[in-house]
Amino acid sequence: MVVTLTPISDLSMVRPGDDLAAAMIAACTRQALAPTDGDIWVVAQKIVSKAEGRYVDLASVRPSPSARKLAVEVDKDPRLVEVILSESRRVIRHKPGVLIVEHRLGFVMANAGVDRSNVDPTAGAEPVLLLPHDPDRSAATLRDRLIAHFHKQMPVVITDSFGRAWRRGTAGIAIGAAGLPALLDLRGRGDLFGRPLRVTQIGFADEIASAASLLMGQADEARPVVIVRGLAWSGADAPAAALIRTAEEDLFR
Amino acid sequence: MVVTLTPISDLSMVRPGDDLAAAMIAACTRQALAPTDGDIWVVAQKIVSKAEGRYVDLASVRPSPSARKLAVEVDKDPRLVEVILSESRRVIRHKPGVLIVEHRLGFVMANAGVDRSNVDPTAGAEPVLLLPHDPDRSAATLRDRLIAHFHKQMPVVITDSFGRAWRRGTAGIAIGAAGLPALLDLRGRGDLFGRPLRVTQIGFADEIASAASLLMGQADEARPVVIVRGLAWSGADAPAAALIRTAEEDLFR
Repeated sequence: MVVTLTPISDLSMVRPGDDLAAAMIAACTRQALAPTDGDIWVVAQKIVSKAEGRYVDLASVRPSPSARKLAVEVDKDPRLVEVILSESRRVIRHKPGVLIVEHRLGFVMANAGVDRSNVDPTAGAEPVLLLPHDPDRSAATLRDRLIAHFHKQMPVVITDSFGRAWRRGTAGIAIGAAGLPALLDLRGRGDLFGRPLRVTQIGFADEIASAASLLMGQADEARPVVIVRGLAWSGADAPAAALIRTAEEDLFR
Repeated sequence: MVVTLTPISDLSMVRPGDDLAAAMIAACTRQALAPTDGDIWVVAQKIVSKAEGRYVDLASVRPSPSARKLAVEVDKDPRLVEVILSESRRVIRHKPGVLIVEHRLGFVMANAGVDRSNVDPTAGAEPVLLLPHDPDRSAATLRDRLIAHFHKQMPVVITDSFGRAWRRGTAGIAIGAAGLPALLDLRGRGDLFGRPLRVTQIGFADEIASAASLLMGQADEARPVVIVRGLAWSGADAPAAALIRTAEEDLFR
């Protein structure tokens, strides 16, 4: 079992309305890669959001009074805070420079994933980019297209870089997944000596996202797709939503 | 830039006092692997702890009154709780079945990493295994031995599976590192369009640990060493301790 991670590099400057699946297949062909059954396509959130046209132009945003108040407390642009709040269920923590929210999809993350870096300056006067509307569905759509083209099993993971509690630095995590168990459930299996396992649920798609993130580079668009070959797993498919701990079962919000 | 992850599988049943570096080199040779300059050796915490003899026999543990009280609240063996507390600075959260502490090394983790699964039953009447005494030092020692043998740069990461806030399932993280920047600092670099980067610090060694964890398997000893080849990075070496957010800068403890 040797696993290889191969980046697809020729995918820069995705624009709203682009056919991302077609662009991925074309770039794969240009690189003379021959995907095989079970290859996992890991795709950076940013190019998915761009293809889906998830831009908001800050120049058109009127911040609410509560966004203005919070913007002062976190020392951010009130229009940006307005967009962040519109993508969020609630604020989890804030302090000057830091705004951690529960995203409408359940992710606990900084700034609801709203991002001003690596955004095409022509997308608006002051464009910012949101997460995909439904990343699990985006992953499923990409997967369907890849299967239709290659006639092979092609799981898809959509990844973003998240900060973590307790640890410095970001790590890649899965915000969307299709065609694999995003959460691996080992409950009931025994260890080498027949004792219960200490670890019973594994953030499989998150580990895949972190692995791919090592190659993507932080300009995000440099190598926005990585093909992971050689992994084996068992268990039913589950979307990235399965990785989200509900507020009720969480001890840290 | 293609990255390969190659497991070393023939390393089961490490015992206290074993020369782990020698065992790793021998297993690598048996698999006819030829390590090259910059190959990262990712090593499961469990075999490091075993080689270092980090066993405690629960049969010899006398729980304190406070351990007994907490054991009732978390529904765990009071002797196990005593050992967990002896490895911890403080309790962060607890509820029935869950005991999250700040480990003496600063990790926020379940049960201070004290583990009853996959432990050699001959190591005591009721053996449990602790984290290595100083995993960054363990990594540095392994690295020195590998460099002395192969005469090439051989970074080492020691990994464990950690639960996370907000997300279900564990992910591999780095508890020890030598020969690479465990935390990559990109502050000051620009994006594709010259704007400041959104992400400025990357948990590089954590992402490496997660990648390797995909191959290690949850019996831990099945494939306890993974060689990561082909990664490029820049920046000064930093140990895994650099990944730990201090209590002062953390919003979630």
